[in-house]
Amino acid sequence: MIIVLKPKSTKQDADEILQSISELGCKPLYMPGTERVVLGAIGDERVLGSLNLEGHPKVESVTPVLSPYKLVSREMHPHDTLVPIGPTVLVGGEKFTVIAGPCAVENEAQMLASGQAAKDAGATCLRGGAFKPRTSPHSFQGLGVQGLEILADVGRKLNMPTVTEVVDAADVETVASYADVLQVGARNMQNFRMLQELGRCSKPVILKRGMAASIQDFLLAAEYIVNEGNPNVILCERGIRTFETTMRNTLDLAAVPYIKLKTHLPVMVEPSHGTGIRDLVSPMSRAAAACGADGIMVEVHCNPAKAVSDGAQSLYPQQFSTLMKDLRIIVEAMGKSL
Amino acid sequence: MIIVLKPKSTKQDADEILQSISELGCKPLYMPGTERVVLGAIGDERVLGSLNLEGHPKVESVTPVLSPYKLVSREMHPHDTLVPIGPTVLVGGEKFTVIAGPCAVENEAQMLASGQAAKDAGATCLRGGAFKPRTSPHSFQGLGVQGLEILADVGRKLNMPTVTEVVDAADVETVASYADVLQVGARNMQNFRMLQELGRCSKPVILKRGMAASIQDFLLAAEYIVNEGNPNVILCERGIRTFETTMRNTLDLAAVPYIKLKTHLPVMVEPSHGTGIRDLVSPMSRAAAACGADGIMVEVHCNPAKAVSDGAQSLYPQQFSTLMKDLRIIVEAMGKSL
Amino acid sequence: MIIVLKPKSTKQDADEILQSISELGCKPLYMPGTERVVLGAIGDERVLGSLNLEGHPKVESVTPVLSPYKLVSREMHPHDTLVPIGPTVLVGGEKFTVIAGPCAVENEAQMLASGQAAKDAGATCLRGGAFKPRTSPHSFQGLGVQGLEILADVGRKLNMPTVTEVVDAADVETVASYADVLQVGARNMQNFRMLQELGRCSKPVILKRGMAASIQDFLLAAEYIVNEGNPNVILCERGIRTFETTMRNTLDLAAVPYIKLKTHLPVMVEPSHGTGIRDLVSPMSRAAAACGADGIMVEVHCNPAKAVSDGAQSLYPQQFSTLMKDLRIIVEAMGKSL
Amino acid sequence: MIIVLKPKSTKQDADEILQSISELGCKPLYMPGTERVVLGAIGDERVLGSLNLEGHPKVESVTPVLSPYKLVSREMHPHDTLVPIGPTVLVGGEKFTVIAGPCAVENEAQMLASGQAAKDAGATCLRGGAFKPRTSPHSFQGLGVQGLEILADVGRKLNMPTVTEVVDAADVETVASYADVLQVGARNMQNFRMLQELGRCSKPVILKRGMAASIQDFLLAAEYIVNEGNPNVILCERGIRTFETTMRNTLDLAAVPYIKLKTHLPVMVEPSHGTGIRDLVSPMSRAAAACGADGIMVEVHCNPAKAVSDGAQSLYPQQFSTLMKDLRIIVEAMGKSL
Repeated sequence: MIIVLKPKSTKQDADEILQSISELGCKPLYMPGTERVVLGAIGDERVLGSLNLEGHPKVESVTPVLSPYKLVSREMHPHDTLVPIGPTVLVGGEKFTVIAGPCAVENEAQMLASGQAAKDAGATCLRGGAFKPRTSPHSFQGLGVQGLEILADVGRKLNMPTVTEVVDAADVETVASYADVLQVGARNMQNFRMLQELGRCSKPVILKRGMAASIQDFLLAAEYIVNEGNPNVILCERGIRTFETTMRNTLDLAAVPYIKLKTHLPVMVEPSHGTGIRDLVSPMSRAAAACGADGIMVEVHCNPAKAVSDGAQSLYPQQFSTLMKDLRIIVEAMGKSL
Repeated sequence: MIIVLKPKSTKQDADEILQSISELGCKPLYMPGTERVVLGAIGDERVLGSLNLEGHPKVESVTPVLSPYKLVSREMHPHDTLVPIGPTVLVGGEKFTVIAGPCAVENEAQMLASGQAAKDAGATCLRGGAFKPRTSPHSFQGLGVQGLEILADVGRKLNMPTVTEVVDAADVETVASYADVLQVGARNMQNFRMLQELGRCSKPVILKRGMAASIQDFLLAAEYIVNEGNPNVILCERGIRTFETTMRNTLDLAAVPYIKLKTHLPVMVEPSHGTGIRDLVSPMSRAAAACGADGIMVEVHCNPAKAVSDGAQSLYPQQFSTLMKDLRIIVEAMGKSL
Repeated sequence: MIIVLKPKSTKQDADEILQSISELGCKPLYMPGTERVVLGAIGDERVLGSLNLEGHPKVESVTPVLSPYKLVSREMHPHDTLVPIGPTVLVGGEKFTVIAGPCAVENEAQMLASGQAAKDAGATCLRGGAFKPRTSPHSFQGLGVQGLEILADVGRKLNMPTVTEVVDAADVETVASYADVLQVGARNMQNFRMLQELGRCSKPVILKRGMAASIQDFLLAAEYIVNEGNPNVILCERGIRTFETTMRNTLDLAAVPYIKLKTHLPVMVEPSHGTGIRDLVSPMSRAAAACGADGIMVEVHCNPAKAVSDGAQSLYPQQFSTLMKDLRIIVEAMGKSL
Repeated sequence: MIIVLKPKSTKQDADEILQSISELGCKPLYMPGTERVVLGAIGDERVLGSLNLEGHPKVESVTPVLSPYKLVSREMHPHDTLVPIGPTVLVGGEKFTVIAGPCAVENEAQMLASGQAAKDAGATCLRGGAFKPRTSPHSFQGLGVQGLEILADVGRKLNMPTVTEVVDAADVETVASYADVLQVGARNMQNFRMLQELGRCSKPVILKRGMAASIQDFLLAAEYIVNEGNPNVILCERGIRTFETTMRNTLDLAAVPYIKLKTHLPVMVEPSHGTGIRDLVSPMSRAAAACGADGIMVEVHCNPAKAVSDGAQSLYPQQFSTLMKDLRIIVEAMGKSL
């Protein structure tokens, strides 16, 4: 940790801070310069954080040297983590994972038709939302437990593991009893109580990046889950909120290779919310494969024009089928397989 | 609602959409132009939303004419809502409300010293966090129920109503049994399940704006609470996340007069998180008063250099006292009183 | 154009506005609703813009139906524009264009070594900056005309057309006398006087997207150039500025397929500035190819550790060579060739 | 300057870098930690910048300790700079400066009526644009030199110094021959060639913050002007571009007190572009005064409904007059005068 003191700080100011560093068992360093005094503290920065030096009246800035996440850091754990979904799917290895299905579970027929289309084209996991976090209280909020039942039933029929969103810590156990993977939506990425509950759950978790989450925030949210004992976390880039509002979000695709440098967890991409525009879903799925993502999660609906939510970004079955063909070529060019 | 069709849409495409509008009991309009066909739909746009026209393959764009929030809209309810806090404080009227106290409840002595300083300088409500949503799982997470007890106890001793954060739907009842106002933090602004629970609670709510929340998202989050039956919502601008990272957040102060045009709910400002820098808290508090805010919520700590969280943005008691003097002049210039 | 009037506007207010629309030779529409009066204006929205209805005291909002750019719009000109660079390169067709070279021209030896490495690996055009727009006046500002001479000389030796930046309207003629393509940097994307000068120049232009430029702003900047008579504009996505500061910029790769829907101009990607991190340049170059870009512009330096600018994002020759091999597979998977 | 090496860097890597620091005449520091080696360099960081250590393959990060701007820094020059405008106005002292007038010079009558209204209400300087940088080439581009003549003429008649925008380095001399202050618009804040030209000009400059400019970028742009010899720079916060698009820009008002901590130059606020909404101009003008700004620049038009540009954000004369009355109370509360 590097601590820069304000101009006109005295040697005594420096000594007091250096002593508090020593008292924590860390090694203090004193580096007086011509315009500023710089202090260093060598040791566990999580411990040093308890000094709250940012609040000290003589401190101008505090710059950590080490990353604040440890459990999810590639430095501590150099090998890729592979996350199993159901008995057959393994995310993070040689297979590029495709999770597909409608935004919301609407009814059995819609789920079955959409799921069958997804499966026929080559998707290996089925998604569908039963609890829908909607910006307006006047929008469709999902079918709840009935939706979970439909999703699980269709998953069994199609022999596809299922992915669905959980929106409250109190629901984790229930959702885990129906679905194979629990998804944390962007709006709940920092619902820390729910993350802790997911950390105590035995099912894998797909953690979507929050709309305003820095990469560090994102990895620290994953750290919350792993810290409670659940190592099976899949990160999912789904776009951030920027001044560019032509698209629903700005898909931060460069975050994929960057995050993979920093963590051993697998990283997927969700181009449907990431762009919000149907015509962009296929190009950005290909780009995700080309930059090293471990898979995609994509919205496919048997009849997007009638979808109760997110129709504008859902692929038609025929489009998804074409995407899968194009994707296969890119994925193989990257040395993986679908 | 204005619907623009894609180029080369046919009269039949338009007719189908117009008919679906009619079937919902709304009035359809047909406006063919030289380059685009534009359709209109007059009626309740919440109902029209169920058509999900955004997902229609012939639709280029859908622009609502009316705001999606109704209950919190000033149009529906022109007069200012006054929200009572405890028996003596009324937010939204002629009094400018000042809520002060430390970021986190650390112990009885710290709360009492900080609260006394806040009270002496003229604050009318006491804040302190017992449940702390922290970006890292390795940071101090708050004292929990013990913190609620200390806060309530100090509030009683100082005869100040208390404000504290709630971070999970399951905690709403417990927190409401200790505190006078429940605060929703920025990270939970779209924790819709918790908002609904707060809507069924009898205590007033301070809803902080999310870091990536548009003003419309913010008002729709308030709509969630009011929609469940709790009319006592205070909005709180606390900064948004932008490219400018010199300050912790970008305090969107112009949102205050804008929001007050759109809603009848009171609006406060939180300059501590809004800037993250102690020296900016007082100027931005004055600015908040000058642009029409109904109050401020500010972090004051008896010893910021030792604060366990947010020390860098907490005022020293003496600074807060000076702020209150300066604020009084601005507040009175605005025709209100402290 | 759709005009929504404020609540309580009268029929007379509407009539006045409708008449002003008629007087411009456009067709007015009157659509009274239950809560708002909506007006329509059918005709050339550039003409309607002269009414400045946004400033009218009774107008709540004005929403254009048509795009404000015409010359660069794919609607007006459905076929892809191919832009020639020098005698042999054609951007926008079946060939994926790779422009490579150092950020700045430092001296003859550095340009020749870097250019040779770029050429050996398969790049077809050579880049190098002689006029460097630097954030600080205390940073290296480029060699100026001497740099243009070196670049032109090395281009001739290697038989590669050259690309270099122009930073002032007054320099356009000079730069055009040395280089084959004139590049507009992000900071000058809305230097309209320079865009107009480039529109009167006979050399093609690479227009980089501004850090805060919406896609519409970007296309309107291109419209400035085309409007003056130069049809040979290549758009270049190079990242936008967002709250995520881990990377130098946020590469908005989804903008590539989106822009290609809206315009007939070719679109390239610049992953060096777009990420600012050497290890991300290759993955994002592959992703650019996979999502449909017409080429990339990438920084390659014979010795990045000694580069006078942007060393952290410059590829080593060996890395660039590996990138070109990987890129070839992706480009061919997309049905194009290098 | 603090340099963090990548994991697995050797002592030899460190030694090489330390030696290069020594060779520049700076003092090197070696601080090996448990997980990282940290190096320090004490001396002029502008000189150290020439090492381009960011590009070094063994370097993980480089953090400057000192600010990159010197001439505009308050540390180097603790006292407030006062900038004279014409013979009577002094910006940055005890007087709060109000510059008012229409967005664009349209004709003599409009300028005279608008200027008279501004003067009557108490504005001391007159603004009006002759060269208008417009997003679209199809929008009104200003009257050019004819506009400069009208502005100068009206300024003489009303005995008000004049402020107008310059958009190209080649125009600096011409504009300076007509106007008392030259304004740099947000889009040209990093038109470095023009900044240098303004640095060689004898008239004061109002430098508006770019839409994507960090505060550091902003101060470095000012440094460009001062570095060429012109000390009379007034900074102007006018809003930045964020995800919140309800308002035209996000007025970053907290930047005002922050910038005043860092620089000795005066800081004004432009709430017209900063919000884009007429009803927000007065509240944000008051807020600007309350947080310590040295003045405001505000758009006032004799007939906003007919303005050729920015009518939606221009005040009516009566509104401006009311604003001036309210502002006086706030300004006096701050210990200054109008």
